[in-house]
Amino acid sequence: MPKSEIESVVAEIAAIAAEKKLTIATAESCTGGLVSAHLVDWAGASAFFLEGAVTYSNNSKIARLDVKPETLAQFGAVSVETAEEMAEGIARRSGADAGVSTTGIAGPDGGTAEKPVGLVYVGVYVNGFVSAERCFFKGTRNEIREHATLKALCLLRDAIKI
Amino acid sequence: MPKSEIESVVAEIAAIAAEKKLTIATAESCTGGLVSAHLVDWAGASAFFLEGAVTYSNNSKIARLDVKPETLAQFGAVSVETAEEMAEGIARRSGADAGVSTTGIAGPDGGTAEKPVGLVYVGVYVNGFVSAERCFFKGTRNEIREHATLKALCLLRDAIKI
Repeated sequence: MPKSEIESVVAEIAAIAAEKKLTIATAESCTGGLVSAHLVDWAGASAFFLEGAVTYSNNSKIARLDVKPETLAQFGAVSVETAEEMAEGIARRSGADAGVSTTGIAGPDGGTAEKPVGLVYVGVYVNGFVSAERCFFKGTRNEIREHATLKALCLLRDAIKI
Repeated sequence: MPKSEIESVVAEIAAIAAEKKLTIATAESCTGGLVSAHLVDWAGASAFFLEGAVTYSNNSKIARLDVKPETLAQFGAVSVETAEEMAEGIARRSGADAGVSTTGIAGPDGGTAEKPVGLVYVGVYVNGFVSAERCFFKGTRNEIREHATLKALCLLRDAIKI
């Protein structure tokens, strides 16, 4: 995807955050830090970006984001429930107004019939409201991660715009 | 820089980590998640990558990495002392064998005569030993962050190779 597409979404996020005096934190699994890296690309990011957590393992999702072990056991790490708990967890832990999360299967291994490679959930939490979206992306591991990064940033933008 | 240069360093890190059964965690300021994102580019990253913290603010460096407030007050966030405490902090907090850190001034603003844009410290902690390196990079904000990412990955590779 063109880099400018992500850059323009980040510019919108920065403008909305400045206008509403919102702070943002990130919790990433499959995107591995790409969402925070793109937010920090913005030269004035320190005004709104508080912190990011790259929680690749189940243990780190529990320890850093307060994802419930029961949620992981019942629904799995790649699920709408986990995505929502990740987004809410990083916001509460960091004291940010908004949290955004990604969890998915970027491949090339790790896919199943029920949860194939390319399945990604992105979640967002803003001031008490939480939601998540289920997406399927095609492509290489890297392309899936880039699509998921853009999707997460768009979800965040749309949630804080309201 | 060519992407393949970073990819080949990550491949070396993955091979050394597999051979020595080492786990790795990251603590990033100026690179904003790029170090973890490149580690997670490796398809088998879950075998060695435990978690990453993107600690952009001073508060998050204290709260997530146990950087001492006195260290930040005396030496500043961009210092050898802070880079070392960040690397050790993420390793101890996550239980990883090795921690790698970045803290610097990517610009375009924020530089001073004493600490100009392009000044970056990268730190590494491995099994009780901690060190940091002072670097100066030229270029745009993005180029400085990319140079810092490669430097941090090289420092990590060299430290775990021994």
